[in-house]
Order: sequence, then structure tokens, then C-alpha cells
Amino acid sequence: MFSGLTHRGGRARRGRGPHPRLRPKARFLSRAGGTRASRSTRAAPGRHAMSAGWFRRRFLPGGPLPEPQPPGPRSSPVPYHRPRFLRGSGSSPGATDSSRRSDSRPVRCPARGRTLPWNAGYAEIINAEKSEFNEDQAACGKLCIQRCEFGIEEEWLTVCPEEFLTGHYWALFDGHGGPAAAILAANTLHSCLRRQLETVVEGLLAPQPPMHLSGRCVCSSDPQFVEEKGIRAEDLVIGALESAFQECDDVIGRELEASGQVGGCTALVAVSLQGKLYVANAGDSRAILVRRDEIRVLSSEFTPETERQRIQQLAFIYPELLAGEFTRLEFPRRLKGDDLGQKVLFRDHHMNGWSYKQVEKSDLKYPLIHGQGRQARLLGTLAVSRGLGDHQLRVLDTNIQLKPFLLSIPQVTVLDVDQLALQEEDVVVMATDGLWDVLSNEQVARLVRSFLTGNREDPHRFSELAKVLIHNTQGKDDGATGEGQVSYDDVSVFVIPLHSPGQGSGGH
Amino acid sequence: MFSGLTHRGGRARRGRGPHPRLRPKARFLSRAGGTRASRSTRAAPGRHAMSAGWFRRRFLPGGPLPEPQPPGPRSSPVPYHRPRFLRGSGSSPGATDSSRRSDSRPVRCPARGRTLPWNAGYAEIINAEKSEFNEDQAACGKLCIQRCEFGIEEEWLTVCPEEFLTGHYWALFDGHGGPAAAILAANTLHSCLRRQLETVVEGLLAPQPPMHLSGRCVCSSDPQFVEEKGIRAEDLVIGALESAFQECDDVIGRELEASGQVGGCTALVAVSLQGKLYVANAGDSRAILVRRDEIRVLSSEFTPETERQRIQQLAFIYPELLAGEFTRLEFPRRLKGDDLGQKVLFRDHHMNGWSYKQVEKSDLKYPLIHGQGRQARLLGTLAVSRGLGDHQLRVLDTNIQLKPFLLSIPQVTVLDVDQLALQEEDVVVMATDGLWDVLSNEQVARLVRSFLTGNREDPHRFSELAKVLIHNTQGKDDGATGEGQVSYDDVSVFVIPLHSPGQGSGGH
Repeated sequence: MFSGLTHRGGRARRGRGPHPRLRPKARFLSRAGGTRASRSTRAAPGRHAMSAGWFRRRFLPGGPLPEPQPPGPRSSPVPYHRPRFLRGSGSSPGATDSSRRSDSRPVRCPARGRTLPWNAGYAEIINAEKSEFNEDQAACGKLCIQRCEFGIEEEWLTVCPEEFLTGHYWALFDGHGGPAAAILAANTLHSCLRRQLETVVEGLLAPQPPMHLSGRCVCSSDPQFVEEKGIRAEDLVIGALESAFQECDDVIGRELEASGQVGGCTALVAVSLQGKLYVANAGDSRAILVRRDEIRVLSSEFTPETERQRIQQLAFIYPELLAGEFTRLEFPRRLKGDDLGQKVLFRDHHMNGWSYKQVEKSDLKYPLIHGQGRQARLLGTLAVSRGLGDHQLRVLDTNIQLKPFLLSIPQVTVLDVDQLALQEEDVVVMATDGLWDVLSNEQVARLVRSFLTGNREDPHRFSELAKVLIHNTQGKDDGATGEGQVSYDDVSVFVIPLHSPGQGSGGH
Repeated sequence: MFSGLTHRGGRARRGRGPHPRLRPKARFLSRAGGTRASRSTRAAPGRHAMSAGWFRRRFLPGGPLPEPQPPGPRSSPVPYHRPRFLRGSGSSPGATDSSRRSDSRPVRCPARGRTLPWNAGYAEIINAEKSEFNEDQAACGKLCIQRCEFGIEEEWLTVCPEEFLTGHYWALFDGHGGPAAAILAANTLHSCLRRQLETVVEGLLAPQPPMHLSGRCVCSSDPQFVEEKGIRAEDLVIGALESAFQECDDVIGRELEASGQVGGCTALVAVSLQGKLYVANAGDSRAILVRRDEIRVLSSEFTPETERQRIQQLAFIYPELLAGEFTRLEFPRRLKGDDLGQKVLFRDHHMNGWSYKQVEKSDLKYPLIHGQGRQARLLGTLAVSRGLGDHQLRVLDTNIQLKPFLLSIPQVTVLDVDQLALQEEDVVVMATDGLWDVLSNEQVARLVRSFLTGNREDPHRFSELAKVLIHNTQGKDDGATGEGQVSYDDVSVFVIPLHSPGQGSGGH
């Protein structure tokens, strides 16, 4: 719930501005939506069936009201918990700054006896009392995908339960507006992904995905058409990840509505399958590959700034979404009365460059995207433009919805691990934005390399490395970063070694 | 006019399929639109003023009809001509294939006495009787940008006509559906660009573009806001190029309507200004930088395939644009009755990956984007997704308009020439798709390097090199390409040397 946010912590890097994702001190505050939107959310079909008509009815004023439905039984709120693999875990003090109670910010990591998939390391720290709960969540485990066969009755029959396609899964969710969406995502997304992969598993196992899932060849040149389009098995995994994120978003919308809760979260997922590592990202977490002589960025951040043109374009197409309260144009700063009639720098949805326009009264409205860098906010409210949840999120004291501007679709990067000529210390570092706000990719890579080189014999070194990374967000200058910056945000980190997978496997 | 297309030439690379840009043998043929669209085109405001309401009235059925307007005086058709800098030029036979009349396909280049800006080379060849006219056009020259000052009356006064900001301009336009749009673009775009640059020239001359064009500082931290957004002078040039393309598109729409003509064209423009080279591209022409040990691609092609998601998304938002005749979904091939009920590979607007869906009757419709590679067509009609013109273009025998799916906005790449440590043989090669259909970037680079190394003393070597490149599209195997492929399309090439600019300058 939003009441859980106390927003005492500042932003570490810029030293100003409130919460990194929701901006409660902005002119507009977020709040839960009214009943009409709730009803239409309940009636919403899956994204695959989503039509322009559905979008218009759901988000635009003046559409026909959905049929009134009797309120369903209200389910109990989503219970707060930490990731399951942390059960029985210990923790070490995280903050070294004596002005803060160090016992309130322990660094947590899995218990020594519990091995995560591929012997991955994990550590987390809660924010500096910005919120009651740690809004980050994490999940990891084996993905057991059942092989199905197309039966005579054109139904899916599980014929070989012993034949599995096995993958591994690591996920980070950074919640906002309460912990509920991130908890639901951690509980749900892997099941959505398994289901989506199972619907295409025949295509994954074939040398090339068949035009028809049944394998029947309606047209003799079908394989050639698939070949010419360049469709490979990995495109089916990308498609399954895209569908799984949407399905999970639908589940979160229904569950939060049923329990009367609100909130949203980012999602960063790494999946290892058939010798490839897929990194799917919706939000501002980040994954990088660190090797002895290479840093490879495996995800891009999706924020109001990086998705400016998509967001401005939607507002251009449907100006109703701004309800006359916002301007879709970008200016270097918010305009005021003195700017009226002057020619000022601006940018619209179709522009990559800048131009000048004469300021009219409507340009003085609050900007659709406002602020700079990590301070940029969508509709004065949200710092990310992709993620799960937020179905009920509205601009404070208005009926303006955030959801039409948000995408639940991830961008997926594929790392062909089998082609990498792996070295023993090659790892993927996945972390929520709390880490990347204070450490650059280069600083993280330096910490990774120096720690792993110095701790070759430690069987728990990836877990220890995750802790070292967290410690380095708490102003603990160990010489590697040389700056000692402090993150007041929740921080969660996975360190996934790529060299000798298959050593460990843990459940969710 | 479309009647000018005879479509006898095949596609060189794939050896099948008709005209590279318009596909007259497809199920749907293009034709000029009816009077209603013509009227609303005339009433259309500039793109900057374009609103969602305007878009809906212009392109969607059921909107209020525009006020009937008396037909304006019909102007005379745009006269056909070759680029002005070819006046008095000679030509050499281009085709070596004796089965074609070699005298019908001369390679043309500027007369020896005429020097193009920077001593650039140019050559062109007409297509293999596919159309009566060469639908490619070209323009180049000096861009003289007047410096203006903001007067007391808040009007623009030219105070120092002797103070110029001087740039250079090279442009290629590849027409389709007749030569008129490309001719208008060659006659007009440079003027639009000059005008757009003149409106922001104060910003270009300042060390950093001021928040207010007047230079007045309304808010003392304005320079800091501009700095934080990272807005540089080059962003104003990019904005000016974006606006100029749109303005030129509006001019072409009005001129073609007034003269009762139709057609469209791609546009590829290189502009040198203040030590930088800007390459703006809308369509499928291409520019590359060739250096001794580097090939740098300076433009991307915009085709129905490369812009699939944008085009599918528009059809998702406004399904009315397809009038029930097309499916927006992508399949590996067009579906038929036998596919009904089967699960086949598909992709929708939000997907980068592929998935399977059960085929319904509506999936059997003609695909919004159909065909593969160079054969891909938008609405069965057009092979490019960006360009100028085509305001009246409709799918044959329907009222379905192409224009809402087309963008006139270019993508702009900036090459910081001053930072390049230029070598004497560094050149930019700009050419229409007729060249790139049969020669790869690497083949072109090989031809460039070997020719320039062997012809250091020839003052006309860049012009000769342009001719060599054209000859290599005509099946003349000189050993450098080793394949001797033939382009049956119009081909036009600029070779722009970067090392010693300012030697030559030519008018349009």
C-alpha cells in the first residue's frame, strides 16, 4: 500500500529527489483507481486477444460502460515474505554509517547449506527506512518443461512425463507502491513461463520450428518459408517470455483487484535453456556479463526518458488519456507564464532532434514526461515505463491512468553461452537499480574480477561476491570503487557463474 | 503516372518478382485516390500542427466530411528532367549484355567542366525499360544560411546578409509510381532545409543552443537545463532535417494534387555543416563511409520488414485502416483454407519472438506486410515504409490508403568529420537501392579502395569511381566483385570525398 512509503531516504547519486520510482512529492500523486476501471479490468481478456476496441473501452472516456458485475468474494491480502530460498538464512550488518542503525539494514543471503541453480550467489539489503517492507523480490529454480504431443483428438496429451526439457531461471522484481505486485510476480512468473514454453515445446525440440505445431506439412515448401524468415528455436523462447510477462501481468491485475491491493514492479529474468541464456527485462534493473576482458550489457533500461517517443506518440494518438491536464511536448524545463509567446526548445513524438516553438498557454501544463535522468517521471508519478501491475494506478486527484502508457512486454537478449569459450570467472551480474544507481558497470566488473581472482578456492565465492557488491552500495569504500557512494534504495543481486553449470539446483 | 510503368524488368538478385518498389502484379494494385481524400489533403495543416483529430478525420471512415471546396485551378504537370548538374553532360554505354540495346542504357555523369561540391563524383543509369523515365533524381549544391536576429518588434530581421553559415548538400530521390514526386523533392527539399535551418540559426551559432531563441534568459538556470538534457547544436540540425522532410512532403502533396499527378519517392540526404556530416534517410537508399580499414554504415533502410512493429501497431490501434481486407498478423507465408484450425507460427505488433496461434478465418486475409526480403510489400503495394509523396496512393480497387502507414520523417546519423583523422581516400558512397541490390557494402568498399589507390593523380577520379560503381551493377565483372550481377533498376550514385572539402561547388 502507498501508506507503507515514508520516503525519508534521498537519492544517493544526485543527492536530491525522493523515491526512485514513485514520486510522492511531485505535483501529482498516485492513488488507487475507482470501481469502473476495476470492473473493466476484471473483464479484460488476455493481451493476445486484446483489440483496439478493448483498449478504447478500457482507457478512453465515453466508451460503453461494461456490464455491471456482482463484486466477487474479496480474497485476503498477499502476505509479505522474503524469497523462499532465504529461509533459514543468516545476515550480516550492511550499513557502516554509524548515523543509521546498522541492525535495521542487514545484508541477507541464502543459508550456507542451500545451493541455488548453477551455484549462483544472491544477496539483498532493504532500503534506508524508505518503506516498511523490502519491495524487491527474487526467485530462482529449475524450469521443468514437459514434452507434449499432439494427440488424435487434437488435444494436448502428456505422453512422456519422464522426458523433460530442463532450464534454469533467476528473476528479480523491484516493487513500487507496496510489495504485493513483486511478491505475486515472484510467485507466478516462472509458472507462466513454463506453461508458455510447454505450448511450443515441440517447436523447440525440432531442428527448426515447424510452420505447423502439429508437424504436419500443409504445403511442401513450408520449411523453406520458415527458413527464409530466419525463424529459429530461440525465437520461440523469446515469444514465450513475451507472452509469459503479459500473462503474469494479467494475473497480478486480477489478484490485486481481488485482494483490494495496489502496486507494480519491474521484472528482470534470466533463463538458461538449450545452451543459451535469455535475459528478459521490463523496467530499470540491469544484467551484465563480466568476463576477464569484456563487459557485455545484457539488458536496457525502460524509463520515461528511454521510451519518450513511444509514450509521446500514444498521447498524440489518444490525447484523451491526458484529460487536458498534461502537455505531451518535452521542454528543457517546465514552462511558466514568463515563457508565453517566446520561442523555446521543444521536442514532439516524431522528433529525435530539437526545434523551437512559440509557447502557447497549453504548453504551460505539467509535462507528460518530466525531470532528468533518474528523476524523470511519467505523468509526475512513475520512474519506469515497463513492468508488471499498476492496473489501478492513477495520477493523484485525477482520473488519469498510468497503465495505458506502461508496457508489460520485456526486451529479450540472447547470449549464446555455448559459443563463448567460457573462462572460469565469467559471471552474469543481475541487480535492481539500487546497485546501478551508485556503481557503474566498470566498477562492478572491477569488484567481480578482483574478488573472484582472490577467492578461487572458496566454494561459496559467488554468494560472497553478491554480498561484496551489496556492501559496496553502502558507502563501504574498499578501494575498488574509490568513491564510497551510498544507495538508500532496496538492492538485490544475483551472481550467476556460467562456467560449470549444473552443480546446484534450488527450488523457488 | 502508373501507366508509365511497363514492368518488363525482373529483380536482379532474386530473379523473380516485378518492380522493386511498387508491385503491380500483386493481388492489390495502387491507384490514385478519390476526391474526398484530395479535398482533405488540401486542407491538411503542416505536420507540426497535425493532431490526433486531424489524423482521424483524414484517414478514418465516419469522420465529418471536410467542407466542400471549389476545385482550384489545375496547374500543369511537373515537367520531367534529369538533375540540373547533368546539363551538357556526356554519357557512356552502360550495359554490356548484347541482348539489350546498350544505347538505351547510357551511364550519365556531369560534364567534365562542372564541379560538384567537394569535387564529389556522380553517375546514374536508367532501368532496363521498366519505366519510360528514370525515376531516380538527384540534387546537390551549397546551402547558404542567412543569419537573422531577433528584432525589437519580435520579428525576424535579416541584419547581416553578408554573414552566412555555409553548408553543402547532396541528395538522392528514388521515385515510384512516376517521376513527379522525386522531381519535386529534388527541386524543393534543399529550400525547405535552408528555411528550417534559418529559423534556428541563432541557436546553431551559440556555443550551446539557448533555451529561448531570443537569447533572453527567463530563468537563470536555463543554460543548466539545456546542458542537463544534453542538447547540442547538432540536435537543432537533426530537428531541422526532420522538419524539412515533413515540409517537403506537404509541398509534394499539394503540388501533385494541383497538377493531377501521383507518386512518391525515397529521400537520402547528406549535409555538411560546421564540421559535421549529417545523413538523413527516409526509404531504402543507403550511405556508407569507406576508409582504408573501416566501413561505417551511415543510414538504415526503412521497409515494411524493418518497420513491421510500427506498421502492425498502427493497424492494431486503427483497424479501420485495413477495411476488413487485410490481417495485421505476420505468418511465414500467406495462409489458406487447409491451415484453418491448425496452430501456425505468427507474430503480432508487440512481439519480437514468434509463437503459435490457431488459425481463424480472418487470418486467411491478405497480410498487411507480405513477402520476404526485397519482395516484402506493405498492403501488397509498396516496398518502402518511409519517403515523400504517395498522398493519393490506395490499394487497387479499394479505398484503403497507404499514406497513414508511411512516415516522411528521416532517421539522421551524425558523422563528426573533424574528429575522424581523415585520410586522403576516405569517401562517403550514397546510392539508391539499385546499387545495393547487387553489391554488398564490402564489394563497394573493395571497388572504392582499389580504384582510388590506382588513380591518385586523376582530378576526375571521384566521378570516374561513381561510373565504375554503376558499371559494376550491369554485369560487368571486373574481378573486384567476382559475380557480375545485374541491376535492372534505376541506379544513382554520389561519391563524396571527405579529405579536402571546399575545392568545388556547384548549383542545383
